[in-house]
Amino acid sequence: MKIFLKLSSLIFLLTIAFNKNTHAQQKPNIIVFLVDDMGWQDTSLPFWDKVTPLNRRYHTPNMERLAKEGMKFTNAYAMPVCTPSRTSMLSGMNSARSRITNWTSPAFNNPTDNQDEQFEAPDWNYNGLSPMDNVPHTQYATTYPELLKEAGYFTVHIGKAHWGSAGTAGASPYNMGFLVNIGGHAAGHPQSYLPADNYGNQPGKASWQAVPDLEEYYGSSDFLTEALTKEAIKTLENPVKNKQPFYLNMSHYAVHDPLQADPRFYQKYIELGLDVQEAKYASLVEGMDKSLGDIMDYLKRKKIDQNTIIIFMSDNGGLSLTPPRGGKPHTQNLPLKSGKGSVNEGGIREPMIVKWPGTTKPSSIAHQYVIIEDFFPTILEMAGIKNYKTVQQVDGKSFVPVLKKPDYSDNNRTLYWHIPNKWTTNDGPGINYRSAIRKGDWKLIYNMRDRSTNLYNLKTDIGEENDLALKFPDKVKELTTLLGTWLRSCKANMPIIKASGKSAPLPDEN
Amino acid sequence: MKIFLKLSSLIFLLTIAFNKNTHAQQKPNIIVFLVDDMGWQDTSLPFWDKVTPLNRRYHTPNMERLAKEGMKFTNAYAMPVCTPSRTSMLSGMNSARSRITNWTSPAFNNPTDNQDEQFEAPDWNYNGLSPMDNVPHTQYATTYPELLKEAGYFTVHIGKAHWGSAGTAGASPYNMGFLVNIGGHAAGHPQSYLPADNYGNQPGKASWQAVPDLEEYYGSSDFLTEALTKEAIKTLENPVKNKQPFYLNMSHYAVHDPLQADPRFYQKYIELGLDVQEAKYASLVEGMDKSLGDIMDYLKRKKIDQNTIIIFMSDNGGLSLTPPRGGKPHTQNLPLKSGKGSVNEGGIREPMIVKWPGTTKPSSIAHQYVIIEDFFPTILEMAGIKNYKTVQQVDGKSFVPVLKKPDYSDNNRTLYWHIPNKWTTNDGPGINYRSAIRKGDWKLIYNMRDRSTNLYNLKTDIGEENDLALKFPDKVKELTTLLGTWLRSCKANMPIIKASGKSAPLPDEN
Repeated sequence: MKIFLKLSSLIFLLTIAFNKNTHAQQKPNIIVFLVDDMGWQDTSLPFWDKVTPLNRRYHTPNMERLAKEGMKFTNAYAMPVCTPSRTSMLSGMNSARSRITNWTSPAFNNPTDNQDEQFEAPDWNYNGLSPMDNVPHTQYATTYPELLKEAGYFTVHIGKAHWGSAGTAGASPYNMGFLVNIGGHAAGHPQSYLPADNYGNQPGKASWQAVPDLEEYYGSSDFLTEALTKEAIKTLENPVKNKQPFYLNMSHYAVHDPLQADPRFYQKYIELGLDVQEAKYASLVEGMDKSLGDIMDYLKRKKIDQNTIIIFMSDNGGLSLTPPRGGKPHTQNLPLKSGKGSVNEGGIREPMIVKWPGTTKPSSIAHQYVIIEDFFPTILEMAGIKNYKTVQQVDGKSFVPVLKKPDYSDNNRTLYWHIPNKWTTNDGPGINYRSAIRKGDWKLIYNMRDRSTNLYNLKTDIGEENDLALKFPDKVKELTTLLGTWLRSCKANMPIIKASGKSAPLPDEN
Repeated sequence: MKIFLKLSSLIFLLTIAFNKNTHAQQKPNIIVFLVDDMGWQDTSLPFWDKVTPLNRRYHTPNMERLAKEGMKFTNAYAMPVCTPSRTSMLSGMNSARSRITNWTSPAFNNPTDNQDEQFEAPDWNYNGLSPMDNVPHTQYATTYPELLKEAGYFTVHIGKAHWGSAGTAGASPYNMGFLVNIGGHAAGHPQSYLPADNYGNQPGKASWQAVPDLEEYYGSSDFLTEALTKEAIKTLENPVKNKQPFYLNMSHYAVHDPLQADPRFYQKYIELGLDVQEAKYASLVEGMDKSLGDIMDYLKRKKIDQNTIIIFMSDNGGLSLTPPRGGKPHTQNLPLKSGKGSVNEGGIREPMIVKWPGTTKPSSIAHQYVIIEDFFPTILEMAGIKNYKTVQQVDGKSFVPVLKKPDYSDNNRTLYWHIPNKWTTNDGPGINYRSAIRKGDWKLIYNMRDRSTNLYNLKTDIGEENDLALKFPDKVKELTTLLGTWLRSCKANMPIIKASGKSAPLPDEN
């Protein structure tokens, strides 16, 4: 009996020892594969209920592969421009609350608003997100990579950051929770994708946008997308070898302007009849897709694909300004209306895919609407991190329940967009000085210029062509009130009317 | 009996399980604490057999503490200037072989040689060290941090790098084997030590030397030395938590020019009667020493001090040019002759301390001469890495036998210095166009200008005041032949005589 007891104690100790040893391996690795300026339709993977001409134009076999292994989200949203999306993701805050409502300049204290006859720019946080308090014109926040790092994750940022202006702590991924940073800084696009240009790092020519940290690839044949992918894989070697859970922010500069041909794919699209600009764009998309495939292959080769979550996302809709895009303006995201910068679906609906082995079912599809700030609580929940503290109020809601149950449905949830800025010189559909709300299938857009509202039913009218505002005044009132109340609750800022010197009214103000 | 067998099997399994679990912890952590431009006497820790006035001037209690816990080297050497030392350390190559014989400009393809009437500059590797082949004017090499990383070490670079020009892969610590880089790039000194200057990062003012990655400290009260120390400790949190062995290249910008007062220590030295420049310098030294203490305290707090090796070193002798230094030129390293840039002892002899718990005896002193390229094989041996492959021929020799046995003695070893460049505009003692050899207590210096040789016995004449060349012609011949043969064997380059267009002769050529 005594011996038996000892035996069981030993087995118990043995179990503890082995558990301790494998503990680090059991936390899932997490990859956010974030594309820049990629539209909802810029893929051969259909996110709508029909295959569109754009789906036939683009070739993204690895997105198809990821969707086959995981879950496709048909109603995933981001903000209309990059810094608001990226800082919402990192902080879990809606950009109306963070007041980071437009893109941040790489230069400090340099609001990016365009001049306007009617409005002065609002007093927004044009220096971006900050991990420190009391930095002028920034939102102070605790980022989820910081919380992941504290929980033992090896946190890696590769590629575009664009969270804050140079000279603020938020500009450096090192200050935002990352142990490694390759290529991330204050700039929002690459000076050049080309290794022959040293990605912009040329004496007397380098701008804010010259991509840092890639000296090894200067003059090589590695297009920027490829160089970043190689750096990501190189960096993961260490945590993989040490069985340490990692978080990879694989944040491509592609497919943002400048539209430069990825030579590996460009010719094909010319031969398929695309004009030069659109062929260049399509080559950027396919180069990005190859990166996804390379990373998936790497995970498989290292036998960690079954313990690695991949979240594919874009930060805003596809650019629909011409030039640089080819074709007619604002047709680049059809059937969606408008593009980057707009609160119309073309500016905010994103191609999103999540593979969480053991949780998401292969080839599953979720129609529940989700939004970029949801990444914050979702990723922390995936990592098993609870009771964390943040200095900011988090707006996002974990979509883990959706991942577990694809037919999860909550039509009472409200999503919000707010851009009281003049993003580009000329207004376009849904572009400049707009707020919007989605609840269920209904979407309402508020135009700060003339205080008009548009109401759409996205279920029957994904292209936002039929304004139902006159037909459903009660719905307009309900959504206008919800939107106004919410904007007020998070102290959202509004542009200043030049004529009166007063803030433009909120949607529900008389 | 059967149960007994099972029990022993379980104990065996348990042992394996625990061993596996603690394996990573058993590899020692390694810190190289590298100071910039610190002279052999710039410390209250005496490295000579007498306490000197300079030892009384400086306050470095943490160097004293480290020496008490480890081993002091009285005859440790580096190259006369920084890039040669730093690249020799990383590659294990003597700089005569790597042809990186002077400091590298942050600008690409920009030799740093001064104009000279007698000589054209040699064709040296003025773009520095490279982890890739075929980069113009670089030496291709495998670095030991790369080998450490491959062996599972978490490799961290903090502070000054200065291994290669901007635009080459060698400029970025990421390409040189480091998983993390904070503050290291192509520049060789900080634009400013002051947080109020953002360490140089100011619009319209930032030069190559503006220190990157420290946005979090802009406008704080953290002097550069302090900010880098905080970043180092922050970065170590992750490997320490995960019980992963780490290598930290704690590479301070201090005490390099610009001589700016570290406000925490400056006033004391003024009150002690130093002139302004020298008080500033002494404050930089003490700020650096505090950093060493902070790191030692951290290791103790984390209970990893008994498994962490610390190697303290400087990259060349103290600067003896005035200004920026105060006092009479070339007296700043007394009793040693000359200073930075010189092959005299003042330019190359370094304060070196090694603490390897369990190996080095407390308060031990080693008189065996060692040199910066020895760090390469030594550190790999400390990490238990054997049979590694390098693309370069390694000149360094492991000093682990010295660490194990302080009275280890090898007087037949030869050390070499070779600087066929014009480092500064005016020649000074041992400065510009010199080679040197040490064997036992003998040292011979070869002056390329007039082909003269000086012979010194360092045992009786550490100040190199008594030239014994005429008295010991056989010794001159022996050392001249050794030096010439060795320079020839490593294809060392020589300056070009303008009058003839030919290379200056090697020391043993007629």
